[in-house]
Amino acid sequence: MGISVDTFFLKPDGQGTLQAQIQQMIAEGILSGRFHVGEKLPSSRKLAAHLGVSRITVTLAYTELLANDYLTARGRSGYYVSENAPVPPKYTPVRRSTETVDWDRALARRFSDGDVLTKPQDWRDYRYPFIYGQPDRTLFDHANWRLCAVRALGHKDFDSLTGDYVDQDDPLLVEFIARHTLPRRGIAARPEEILITLGAQNALWLTSRILLGHGRKAAIEDPSYYALHELLRCSDATMTALRVDQDGLPPDAIPDDTDVIYTTPSHQCPTTATMPVARRHDLLERARALDAMIVEDDYEFEMAFLGAPSPALKSLDRDGRVIYVGSFSKSLFPGLRLGYMVGSEAFIREARALRSLVFRHPPGHIQRTAAYFLSLGHYDAQIRRMSKALLQRRQTMEEAIERHGLTVAGRGVFGGSSMWMRAPDHVDTAELARQLQKQGVHIEPGAPFFSDPHRPRNFYRLGYSSISSDRIPDGIARIAEAIQAS
Amino acid sequence: MGISVDTFFLKPDGQGTLQAQIQQMIAEGILSGRFHVGEKLPSSRKLAAHLGVSRITVTLAYTELLANDYLTARGRSGYYVSENAPVPPKYTPVRRSTETVDWDRALARRFSDGDVLTKPQDWRDYRYPFIYGQPDRTLFDHANWRLCAVRALGHKDFDSLTGDYVDQDDPLLVEFIARHTLPRRGIAARPEEILITLGAQNALWLTSRILLGHGRKAAIEDPSYYALHELLRCSDATMTALRVDQDGLPPDAIPDDTDVIYTTPSHQCPTTATMPVARRHDLLERARALDAMIVEDDYEFEMAFLGAPSPALKSLDRDGRVIYVGSFSKSLFPGLRLGYMVGSEAFIREARALRSLVFRHPPGHIQRTAAYFLSLGHYDAQIRRMSKALLQRRQTMEEAIERHGLTVAGRGVFGGSSMWMRAPDHVDTAELARQLQKQGVHIEPGAPFFSDPHRPRNFYRLGYSSISSDRIPDGIARIAEAIQAS
Repeated sequence: MGISVDTFFLKPDGQGTLQAQIQQMIAEGILSGRFHVGEKLPSSRKLAAHLGVSRITVTLAYTELLANDYLTARGRSGYYVSENAPVPPKYTPVRRSTETVDWDRALARRFSDGDVLTKPQDWRDYRYPFIYGQPDRTLFDHANWRLCAVRALGHKDFDSLTGDYVDQDDPLLVEFIARHTLPRRGIAARPEEILITLGAQNALWLTSRILLGHGRKAAIEDPSYYALHELLRCSDATMTALRVDQDGLPPDAIPDDTDVIYTTPSHQCPTTATMPVARRHDLLERARALDAMIVEDDYEFEMAFLGAPSPALKSLDRDGRVIYVGSFSKSLFPGLRLGYMVGSEAFIREARALRSLVFRHPPGHIQRTAAYFLSLGHYDAQIRRMSKALLQRRQTMEEAIERHGLTVAGRGVFGGSSMWMRAPDHVDTAELARQLQKQGVHIEPGAPFFSDPHRPRNFYRLGYSSISSDRIPDGIARIAEAIQAS
Repeated sequence: MGISVDTFFLKPDGQGTLQAQIQQMIAEGILSGRFHVGEKLPSSRKLAAHLGVSRITVTLAYTELLANDYLTARGRSGYYVSENAPVPPKYTPVRRSTETVDWDRALARRFSDGDVLTKPQDWRDYRYPFIYGQPDRTLFDHANWRLCAVRALGHKDFDSLTGDYVDQDDPLLVEFIARHTLPRRGIAARPEEILITLGAQNALWLTSRILLGHGRKAAIEDPSYYALHELLRCSDATMTALRVDQDGLPPDAIPDDTDVIYTTPSHQCPTTATMPVARRHDLLERARALDAMIVEDDYEFEMAFLGAPSPALKSLDRDGRVIYVGSFSKSLFPGLRLGYMVGSEAFIREARALRSLVFRHPPGHIQRTAAYFLSLGHYDAQIRRMSKALLQRRQTMEEAIERHGLTVAGRGVFGGSSMWMRAPDHVDTAELARQLQKQGVHIEPGAPFFSDPHRPRNFYRLGYSSISSDRIPDGIARIAEAIQAS
């Protein structure tokens, strides 16, 4: 019996080459039990005509399936589903009728009720996406990333990528970070003092689980990275939010019984304030007096196109009191999920053990790909390309904001990729964002960054890492109009 | 001033092409500040002669660095370090003198003092590696994995791979698991009931954090997966270990106040026992009576070369009481770190929120690569290839074990990749393993799998997923000799 040519169709949104799509639909037909052993496939000529593709494309797909033993060839008579093809599922899945579990009782704790800022999944369809922290495909060196990934998949690297290293990191990546990345932040660290994490979020979580817990006290900046609130809430520690000023976190405000201080000295999130060196020394002094630990989130230091960034707070740390968190999410792309943390060996040992418990180690292949991308110099070339584009966008932002009389509440002095904005007091920027959305403008309301119950609702953030320069003036004009109309 | 050709050398263990190695050493020289702006590079002829490579190789490396603006060319006079080259670190790192932090006080809890089975990093150098759960490079379809990875890095997929999906999974991978993988285990699940995890370890950890905690009680199998003990110890729950018999976990033994039952019904770890269907119904009945949850670790079900595996316990679950954990670590490779869990929507919602808190989501690229590898049929082809090899090894194992009179304590009835062995009572297999190591034989001592304080010390596990058939008889002979001599 032959399989009818009519059961084949190319999906309008099909991905990959035509050959791969054809191969995939046949494999799926066999795996789902729709095609049976011994059934004859349509001739390559027929299928090609039906799908409107070239005959060679179909023949190549068949040949591939032949090599995998999904199909067999019988002389000139054509291709058949092989006897050795995978057997389709034997058990007919039955839908569970009614679930009886009492989830209120079963769940020891809930994690899903946090207050998080959600990004629209379709932000690329916005004409004016002032979104923060997303990759700009026009700036990313896709070709070289791909080459590095292929190199990391080579036979030489295969063992190191596929093996189960339990709790080890890629030595190439760790070495590059130690020798080239950290010295730029004034930090000297041995490999035992470095841990690769699944992004900065993962690093921050590890610190919360190791240093905090019931009965401990954390101090955070207000406003601050919204995911940090949620993360600390789940740590069972008490949390105090300290209002930042134009120089970032004020050390004097830190309560006496604080155990851990979370701070973003280079580039306060989200106000972009940079902490002056004198205050950094005060902060370290205050932490020493309290015997408190400091977690430094040094995000986005690479985007310094207006001036050299200050060295990291960690570079001034003589006590081993600062845990430094870095990330490749902004400079490469967030979907990569790669970051790192630097701290005393005693701390990194615990972080490594906890990481091992939670997921063992970040996947080997992405570590090695990043190591190649960094060590071949592509990373630095890319940072310079991004910085150049961001500098131009920043200038356009400044001009347009000036022209339309919008109020800047914070702008990074050395660069960055966002500006912190203040609308008039009566404006609720969550409502403003909804209004602007209809015109294809995406802005980020500021309220989720604040911990204060009486939090201000008139701040907003404008990212410029994903909007092209020529769209900026028109986008800012629309924001100004919408604020006027509020 | 010219850079001396003598500062260049190819590392004996250098990886990648010669061109890439040359490019890398120059980029590193610039990034580390050893080479300065305006310095002249050696001529391609000179450097090629010095390194013993072809001149075109050096020229290609220089051209690449030219494109990245690390070098500039000045007519016929040669290549120079570009003015636009990345600036080397400005701050001289200073080593911290003495650390003053009191880590006993600073650490809210310790994770590094667990009792874990460590695998030798150099196991590939063993002549007789009876190691468990490591990839066999001769069986893995490296070429197609690489093609899928390259496809997943294509421009079409770039956005989906690089973006920050916060807590979403790759829809292609989830769909394949729902439509093709789970039906083979008798399980019907909607995408909302599936979560991609960083391996099975990560899935088990998520269950422990959501379902357990202070005041809750877990029941586990004894012996069981050693990392599970550690994971539950860190959950603050009380843990009862129940001795398994030839049919796996005995439901009657589960204490009355149990909240969560961890079990491996398809293939008990490490004894390889398969739980009969009647006992599975008893287990579900017992869990219902206790209103307890069950976590089913369905590892290695793919390696069924001796007979069809039983459907998963989850397939019999009508209450929504079973949380199913699957993994690609054994069938693809552990360094991939990909697994999944299936449960009621109420549970998966919490698991997703917790995962988001801890690391957001598994890296997009590895999810998409796996989705292609699966949907193009390579995965099933690979399983069949592995099963064929494992069947042959298993037969060789059985023959050699029979010939040398070793005692099998458990062998998977449908296949698997290991056998659970018992040495005479007086033999400590940890000591036996040390003895055998000197002869290039790696075996896994059984004690770490037991929770019992009076745990037996005479069991051991023999994996056959990484040892070739022709080495097996000799390896088994050496084990028999060593046991004789004990």
